Amino acid sequence: MVIFRRRESEAEIIMSDVGVTIKKNEDFSEWYTEVILKSGLADYAPIKGCMIIREDAIAMWEKIQEILNKKIKVTGHRNVYFPMFIPEGFLKKEAEHFAGFTPEVAWITQGGDTPLEERLAVRPTSETIMYATFSKWIRSWRDLPLKINQWCNIVRWETKATKLFLRTREFLWQEGHTAHATKEEAEKEVIYALEEYRDIIENHLAIPVIVGVKSDSEKFAGADYTTALEAMMPDGKALQMGTSHNLGQHFANVFDIKFIGEDEKEHKVWQTSWGMTTRTIGALVMVHGDDKGLVLPPKIAPVQVVIVPIPYKGSDPAPIAAKAKEISDQLIQKGLSVILDDRQEYTPGWKFNQWELKGVPVRIEIGPRDLKQQQVTIARRDTCQKSFVKETEAIAAVEKLLVEIQHNLYAKARVNLEEKMTTVKTYDQFKQSLCKKGGFIKAAWCGSADCEAKIKEETSATIRVRPFEKESPDANCIICGQKGKEMVYFAKSY
Amino acid sequence: MVIFRRRESEAEIIMSDVGVTIKKNEDFSEWYTEVILKSGLADYAPIKGCMIIREDAIAMWEKIQEILNKKIKVTGHRNVYFPMFIPEGFLKKEAEHFAGFTPEVAWITQGGDTPLEERLAVRPTSETIMYATFSKWIRSWRDLPLKINQWCNIVRWETKATKLFLRTREFLWQEGHTAHATKEEAEKEVIYALEEYRDIIENHLAIPVIVGVKSDSEKFAGADYTTALEAMMPDGKALQMGTSHNLGQHFANVFDIKFIGEDEKEHKVWQTSWGMTTRTIGALVMVHGDDKGLVLPPKIAPVQVVIVPIPYKGSDPAPIAAKAKEISDQLIQKGLSVILDDRQEYTPGWKFNQWELKGVPVRIEIGPRDLKQQQVTIARRDTCQKSFVKETEAIAAVEKLLVEIQHNLYAKARVNLEEKMTTVKTYDQFKQSLCKKGGFIKAAWCGSADCEAKIKEETSATIRVRPFEKESPDANCIICGQKGKEMVYFAKSY
Repeated sequence: MVIFRRRESEAEIIMSDVGVTIKKNEDFSEWYTEVILKSGLADYAPIKGCMIIREDAIAMWEKIQEILNKKIKVTGHRNVYFPMFIPEGFLKKEAEHFAGFTPEVAWITQGGDTPLEERLAVRPTSETIMYATFSKWIRSWRDLPLKINQWCNIVRWETKATKLFLRTREFLWQEGHTAHATKEEAEKEVIYALEEYRDIIENHLAIPVIVGVKSDSEKFAGADYTTALEAMMPDGKALQMGTSHNLGQHFANVFDIKFIGEDEKEHKVWQTSWGMTTRTIGALVMVHGDDKGLVLPPKIAPVQVVIVPIPYKGSDPAPIAAKAKEISDQLIQKGLSVILDDRQEYTPGWKFNQWELKGVPVRIEIGPRDLKQQQVTIARRDTCQKSFVKETEAIAAVEKLLVEIQHNLYAKARVNLEEKMTTVKTYDQFKQSLCKKGGFIKAAWCGSADCEAKIKEETSATIRVRPFEKESPDANCIICGQKGKEMVYFAKSY
Repeated sequence: MVIFRRRESEAEIIMSDVGVTIKKNEDFSEWYTEVILKSGLADYAPIKGCMIIREDAIAMWEKIQEILNKKIKVTGHRNVYFPMFIPEGFLKKEAEHFAGFTPEVAWITQGGDTPLEERLAVRPTSETIMYATFSKWIRSWRDLPLKINQWCNIVRWETKATKLFLRTREFLWQEGHTAHATKEEAEKEVIYALEEYRDIIENHLAIPVIVGVKSDSEKFAGADYTTALEAMMPDGKALQMGTSHNLGQHFANVFDIKFIGEDEKEHKVWQTSWGMTTRTIGALVMVHGDDKGLVLPPKIAPVQVVIVPIPYKGSDPAPIAAKAKEISDQLIQKGLSVILDDRQEYTPGWKFNQWELKGVPVRIEIGPRDLKQQQVTIARRDTCQKSFVKETEAIAAVEKLLVEIQHNLYAKARVNLEEKMTTVKTYDQFKQSLCKKGGFIKAAWCGSADCEAKIKEETSATIRVRPFEKESPDANCIICGQKGKEMVYFAKSY
């Protein structure tokens, strides 16, 4: 504990062979931090509230970028880069938006030696700076839809304690921004983005989510409505994985974004924006990690297979090295990301620990006995099971295993999600369930902001989503006892 | 002129069919701006000193990222992300570094409603924030070399007029940072990075460069020495395309970055840093562009081939459309980036202009006559020549042509570079040559900073590089007349 609190070098921590010292189910929060620091996913920065996103985490973020870029480019979205400086006057144009973001804006007030005439916000989100330009770019229906996306850093001046990946003053994200000729088209785009996120999160990160609409009090400041994906963490708290907003014509009105339609009349555009951040990596740690460290889904793991040759004392290391190299080459040829760890300065046992800590899905061991038996030993990270496979079948076995691990991780996470899903009929049941196991609690809600606020105040749970498919409640609102309008999902959240 | 000065929408400018109105050799600077705005590479941002990097420019930057990432990852460099906030105290630690960067730092002084205790610089470069952490990460020779890289935004509060891509308050770059056990290894790394840059710039961007060491007055603030790549623009001014610094132990000393060597003694690390920015895209415009707009090298072009079906009035458009689709599919299968422009709302002539403006290397036209003759018409952007190729040979012909265009663009740029290279023996010759044609002027220099300063003051030319291969001058220093120590390249520069 003390070791990583003092923020010593990852190198030293690993060298010390301590490994993860905290059990996931004993102190989830400390376990989380320890795993991230020791696995080298991230480190505290030498400046308050900030983190360093390290090599393996950036590699995963790059994979997410690659996947999402491919998806959205096919559907005509293109990447751009807008300035991160937003004049205060721009932020102020949309009143709700300004009110929502101002409390956590970092302000630039001086350039070189000169105080600025108007202070500049470091972007907390880019709607205002982008849409000031949209009004210039969009003139005719031929310019629509305008679909752009930006990968960049974002600043929100958090005052609560830093939590790696989940709450830092700077983080990385992607923000899509689109403008459409019709309301219907914008509505479709909102769902399009949400579904692309769902595919990445469920099928690549192996994290099941529930989706739906946010209540008004939780929506994006300046949106008509916000849709979101919510995942369930093992400690019973929800984590928002991405949001997709229907901005309606709020910004089109204040930034005067209009076009001449095919009907030769003037119209205002309909807009959407949607974002996913590096916090998804925090979810990955929480959902899949175990007492040995990270457990990474093969589709997102920076290293999918590690090969550890195990030369015994007295036996000739050359044929083992040759076999390891051969298998490594074959796997690389299959398009897999492989590390052949033939370092001399570390023992095989040390290496096992390190790669388990880092969550590599599959480990192949090759020792003299394996060589003799014309087999390899394959260890899977998710279940920690070992098996022996004939050399000739090793490549196919690894490929199959990676698919299996991906599925297994999702299935396990799905079980956790379902276990943490409760339906209640009364406020008492609600409080009991929240206290006992947390998770998503489905309950009837009358639709009033007052009831929502009361629950939040008394239990700190909020409405995470209102499901798209409305379910008519057979109970009354758990707070006021009035007729329930809809069933919604409550949870405490990160 | 007035049109783009008023910053109207790209859409409108293109719709107006005006095209590029300024000749490259008549007003180079205005031509440059017009081409960038009209081709849609960039736009002025609605905030002083900043630009919007638009779709095609980001697509090229992504290609550069892909190429460089591939190179440096193979050699063990890994990407990371450090905070962009740098406490003033960090910047101050290395005195030269602080003095060099402070005049153009943007300062954050307030977070939310709270004034900060210590103001924060928005990173003008990341040495100090990174190296404060290096001292934590590096303990043993086993931790070395440490080789990381970061793709991010950078802020330098320019006070001179904005020049798109070349001088803006925010830009994108990549910064590599390495720490080594020995001086020799660090020296090798400096050259390694320089050579990777050279490969990208010469072989992908098709821009020839000269390389060498910067004089002390031009080196990076805090480096032992700086190496650089310099390209020559058509107006006779040099443009720095990338730099690679040997930081020696300057930062290791102030940030106390030391390690226990294999000899079990304590040593300080040797460091390098190197960067390449989005200004390279500005060079691309300048070097290859012509009176019709951009001319993009195939290896970096977001769209390599555009196919324009030309249905004549009265003829059946279906077989032309089918043929265009067939060829498009075949080219895409070859891994090429292709647009089949079958929009109905624009004429073929309008499309030709638009894709020429955007610099697409190859255009394929398919009209009724082509169909009848079982041929396609191929137009190359670099020479604007058209040729007719049998349908069956079209794919091979396009592939060959793309290679040819890539080579031709480099060759033309090489000729420009060589034409703009003069050797002089006297200061008079120097001034004459600088005034008449600009370019690189090779001359003897005694090595004194005073002579260098005098030239800069009197002519605004600076030493761009001191070539790696020292040439013993057969002349005296062109300023002081003392014995010339070495031949160096002077030029005016961006």
